Amino acid sequence: MSQPAENTRIVLASRPVGEPQPSDFRIESAPLPVPGEGQLLLETRYLSLDPYMRGRMSDAESYADPVALGHVMVGGTVCTVIESRDPGYSSGDVVLSFSGWQSHSVADAKHVRKIDPSLAPVETALGVLGMPGFTGYAGLLRIGKPQPGETVVVAAATGPVGSAVGQIARIKGARAVGIAGGPEKCAYLHELGFDAAIDHRAPDFADQLAAAVPNGIDVYFENVGGQVWDAVLPLLNTYARVPVCGLIANYNLTSAPAGPDRAPALMSRILTKSLTVRGFIQSEFVKESFADFMLDMSGWVRDGKVGYREDIVDGLTNAPEAFIGLLRGKNFGKLLVKVADA
Amino acid sequence: MSQPAENTRIVLASRPVGEPQPSDFRIESAPLPVPGEGQLLLETRYLSLDPYMRGRMSDAESYADPVALGHVMVGGTVCTVIESRDPGYSSGDVVLSFSGWQSHSVADAKHVRKIDPSLAPVETALGVLGMPGFTGYAGLLRIGKPQPGETVVVAAATGPVGSAVGQIARIKGARAVGIAGGPEKCAYLHELGFDAAIDHRAPDFADQLAAAVPNGIDVYFENVGGQVWDAVLPLLNTYARVPVCGLIANYNLTSAPAGPDRAPALMSRILTKSLTVRGFIQSEFVKESFADFMLDMSGWVRDGKVGYREDIVDGLTNAPEAFIGLLRGKNFGKLLVKVADA
Repeated sequence: MSQPAENTRIVLASRPVGEPQPSDFRIESAPLPVPGEGQLLLETRYLSLDPYMRGRMSDAESYADPVALGHVMVGGTVCTVIESRDPGYSSGDVVLSFSGWQSHSVADAKHVRKIDPSLAPVETALGVLGMPGFTGYAGLLRIGKPQPGETVVVAAATGPVGSAVGQIARIKGARAVGIAGGPEKCAYLHELGFDAAIDHRAPDFADQLAAAVPNGIDVYFENVGGQVWDAVLPLLNTYARVPVCGLIANYNLTSAPAGPDRAPALMSRILTKSLTVRGFIQSEFVKESFADFMLDMSGWVRDGKVGYREDIVDGLTNAPEAFIGLLRGKNFGKLLVKVADA
Repeated sequence: MSQPAENTRIVLASRPVGEPQPSDFRIESAPLPVPGEGQLLLETRYLSLDPYMRGRMSDAESYADPVALGHVMVGGTVCTVIESRDPGYSSGDVVLSFSGWQSHSVADAKHVRKIDPSLAPVETALGVLGMPGFTGYAGLLRIGKPQPGETVVVAAATGPVGSAVGQIARIKGARAVGIAGGPEKCAYLHELGFDAAIDHRAPDFADQLAAAVPNGIDVYFENVGGQVWDAVLPLLNTYARVPVCGLIANYNLTSAPAGPDRAPALMSRILTKSLTVRGFIQSEFVKESFADFMLDMSGWVRDGKVGYREDIVDGLTNAPEAFIGLLRGKNFGKLLVKVADA
């Protein structure tokens, strides 16, 4: 790990209209930042790419402020400390940070968390043992509350959130039905122990889903929206719970789709089936549930009860293309960019 | 109370397409039914008319089976026992029953509940101290969970459900904003102690509502849908709760309204604001909360903390017209039909 002269960073060049284009990003070089007292100079090893980043590229009102034009794209990272001005950290320590799409950064020591490389591969702190895994854990257990024998359905099921949801549902005694794109991903869901796997690209997708849930759906963990939600809604049982953590199918919409207006029918369904539809961001549950998550999930991973898969792209400059692919469902497993070797 | 020769009843003649018409109902005469062992012959004093009945006229899937064509319209009633074949009841007792739109009926003694006429006017068992009051109580407290200082908004606020919601919200320390149709109803909301009253017929209704909730909306008790919901949705705070107990604006829809399709935008709002949208039917909460309701609500009514208003129509044969008016918001207070004098 030689100290380089420059920081390579990817900034938001323009706000996408619809699907992001490579030209919405710009690669820049900048001098290395200098850490102040209580700060760390970090070299990024892994950058996490996640669907929520699409929202941060737009200036529509959302739960977080947008990335400003010309600013570094945000994102979770696993970094190596290359210079510490905080007594709690030493050069060579590996930390979880939120340094964004860049090779180097300065962070306050109080904003990072040390990762023990002997416990699990360090990049799992961005996936199964990190924000995506916790999103699945908290949304399923705090909102979905699956009971033994109930049916839990999740889409994007080979992704880091969906695969956590399905596997935790099974651990809790529920039946897990996963939805994914293509036979390869569906085969992987069977490997993970899902009770059924449905390919959303199949022309008879809705019929296949209905056949896979003979007792209806008690929990639908919503992270995609679109045609999957359309197929799920009529299958939801009375008192079904729908934690809503993402709507990737909507993120590139530039305007409301053509009519008819199905919002009244959606509300009617919520009424007649006594549904609970509950949006959430994982941060809401960190204080109460993150410690339990780390204990439970690291145990389940260690014991082989929860498997995970990573899709690692090499080189920071490939991040824009990989991110655009993520929104199209091209990744297979938790999408990470390897920015630097250990 | 002379024993008449006949039962007058109103049956469902045809399923309405859109708004019900008088011709969808038929008035019939039938011989008086004869009570068996453990049954009571009842004479109806008051029939309750409620928006949910519109749903029972249709054969679309809902939380309850539709009324069959040619069968008596369902509905809650306050009745006098005119013949008892159960040791627990005597002729002259007043009971709450679900006898529907008819002058006489037979009920199993175990399906009725005795009303004590010394405690409150007997017809309150169909309103503030009955199903509508309980709907407001349970939906607000079990799902809405208003905290002191929060803002609660309810529409159809002079109706039996909405007026309970607003007044209970104030008892719990929240700010209550009521929505109603016309200045007379709005004035009544001020009488009941609502902090603000908005006329949904005003051309600048949405602006008036926004001005009345400077800190946003924490609980919206949904019982109407339509343009009120459209105005409320952008004003909901993060973590707002939306108990959904009725959608009267949708009940007469014959197809989905013209586009664009606003369902994806609704789901996006649920996500970005971490909303809880929860449909419910009051029966879900009876076991756990009805006893508390009766204790709380009868105390509040006795102490003048909860006021109520009744809109009483005279004569069973006027029920169809009154019900059609209810769906148009013509009633002012709990709509009842006086079927027979005491």
